[in-house]
Amino acid sequence: MGDELLTPLRWTGDALELLDQRRLPHVEIWVRCETFEDVVRAIRNMTIRGAPAIGCAAAFGVALAAQGDGTLGVALDQLRATRPTAVNLFWALDRMAQVRPQTREALTREAMAIWQEDIASCRAIGMQGAALLPAAGTVLTHCNAGALATGGYGTALGIIRAARAAGKAIAVLADETRPFLQGSRLTAWELARDGIPTTVISDNMAGHFLSRGEVAAVVVGADRIARNGDTANKIGTYSLAVLARENGVPFYVAAPRSTIDRAVADGSGIPIEERNPDEVLCFTSIRVAPAGVSARHPAFDVTPARYITAIVTEVGVARAPYEQSIGALFS
Amino acid sequence: MGDELLTPLRWTGDALELLDQRRLPHVEIWVRCETFEDVVRAIRNMTIRGAPAIGCAAAFGVALAAQGDGTLGVALDQLRATRPTAVNLFWALDRMAQVRPQTREALTREAMAIWQEDIASCRAIGMQGAALLPAAGTVLTHCNAGALATGGYGTALGIIRAARAAGKAIAVLADETRPFLQGSRLTAWELARDGIPTTVISDNMAGHFLSRGEVAAVVVGADRIARNGDTANKIGTYSLAVLARENGVPFYVAAPRSTIDRAVADGSGIPIEERNPDEVLCFTSIRVAPAGVSARHPAFDVTPARYITAIVTEVGVARAPYEQSIGALFS
Repeated sequence: MGDELLTPLRWTGDALELLDQRRLPHVEIWVRCETFEDVVRAIRNMTIRGAPAIGCAAAFGVALAAQGDGTLGVALDQLRATRPTAVNLFWALDRMAQVRPQTREALTREAMAIWQEDIASCRAIGMQGAALLPAAGTVLTHCNAGALATGGYGTALGIIRAARAAGKAIAVLADETRPFLQGSRLTAWELARDGIPTTVISDNMAGHFLSRGEVAAVVVGADRIARNGDTANKIGTYSLAVLARENGVPFYVAAPRSTIDRAVADGSGIPIEERNPDEVLCFTSIRVAPAGVSARHPAFDVTPARYITAIVTEVGVARAPYEQSIGALFS
Repeated sequence: MGDELLTPLRWTGDALELLDQRRLPHVEIWVRCETFEDVVRAIRNMTIRGAPAIGCAAAFGVALAAQGDGTLGVALDQLRATRPTAVNLFWALDRMAQVRPQTREALTREAMAIWQEDIASCRAIGMQGAALLPAAGTVLTHCNAGALATGGYGTALGIIRAARAAGKAIAVLADETRPFLQGSRLTAWELARDGIPTTVISDNMAGHFLSRGEVAAVVVGADRIARNGDTANKIGTYSLAVLARENGVPFYVAAPRSTIDRAVADGSGIPIEERNPDEVLCFTSIRVAPAGVSARHPAFDVTPARYITAIVTEVGVARAPYEQSIGALFS
């Protein structure tokens, strides 16, 4: 395992620097954000992505905007409008809006706290989840719910890291996760960096390996969890959950409580972002499909709670019935 | 609809020409095969692909080899070893091996018959299957089971063409089908050519659209169908079948009887080709995943018959119990 904790962001005292996730794994470039507008742009264009990581970045964006109440309101509004699905963004902005006094120092301190608490939550999720994995086996994951998607350490990948640290012989099967390829580019990169054996598959292969008994568990992250346990996560998660249940493989969602939106009763209340269809018609920047063909690009889907074996948070593991078990996580 | 029938191959009298499916949709290049070795290479490297199309190409490969009994045996052996899963290849080669006299003329006549019969079968499959589709709706398909995968017209796409010709308002949702991208490159290209409205999605989106009630039916091709109805087809087909059943959407397999292997009792007897993992780690020549990461690349999967609503052939529609209904197709 790498000695130093990988984080997708760093605070220099006067700027937020983001590891450019559009360019990984080939080049490691840090994008410098000196204004909240820079952070708005970075969240929109996926320089940084992943629900908890977006929350952290947005918090620092508010700190960067702290030059008076007027600017702060504009910053909060613009950051709020960057991406609709991950609730951690709104959670972090709500928390920043309540900081008093609204000074750069106090706001920076709160952003730092949000970031460091997220890392601590990931480590706790890792401990909680590692206990659910077998002593040896292959874990299938989707997208990137790793260090790069959080303050650091990761949610789904935090569980894998903690299980490995506890001596479990866990290997990873990583869905490449079209169209942005978070799996083959980001998950494979950060797991290889930690020496965790990782095999990439295209998304349409997951069912095959599940049906052949080659997967011990599926572990994914989340962008928003409703009060009843319905979970929005990267497009393709729903399919994995159905295929896992069909083959008797446990399906775990790993997320901090900041990903749970108790104001939303069920998955039908979670807005699903539709991104640019060109991302589907192209592969990296190369056009794949012929001219005159359209595409759809829902960036997330909703997995009904009935397919979820357990939701692993920093304070405990929730299981069905989720209304009660999720409520208990906050009491 | 295009006036002229699109075919993936043409016979010039002294050579087999293949529309290069590695280069579509951007360029239309015909690769000239003057020897059986050229055909062996073209099947191996996917210049031509699709179970029925491979059978047709292999038949012409045998005709090209007809310069004496010795060469013919070598050609049959080498063509037989090109790809393991699609049974149409072996079916066509067995048929060619029985031709007497083994003259270029007689062998060419038989290859022509195999090709033209396949086109006729596709048209008949289209008629049989069109009746199963609603008057209007979206059909989801995977990979390319179209004109390019057959002698011409297509199996799954033949059903869509026939339904459209019968006045049904069918639109198509096409899985891009990683890693070779047969959906976004080939299916989208040949359907756009016919003016059939087509929307490309990445493979991991299919479950989402099925769960939202946006898909009236799933129609796919097949590479080999066992006696009990278990069906090998492009990787990802199994997942679609599970997701279709979970959402109450009919799942149809379209294939000529030459795709049915009555010597194989069930799916466990169908060999699954593993192709080069670099095709998963790369796109064209561009590396996606970081160094030091491995991949798996099963090119096909097996869909158990219990997920299949019906198998549509040129002589009729088989439904469960398949042992009986498939047997009846041959009586």
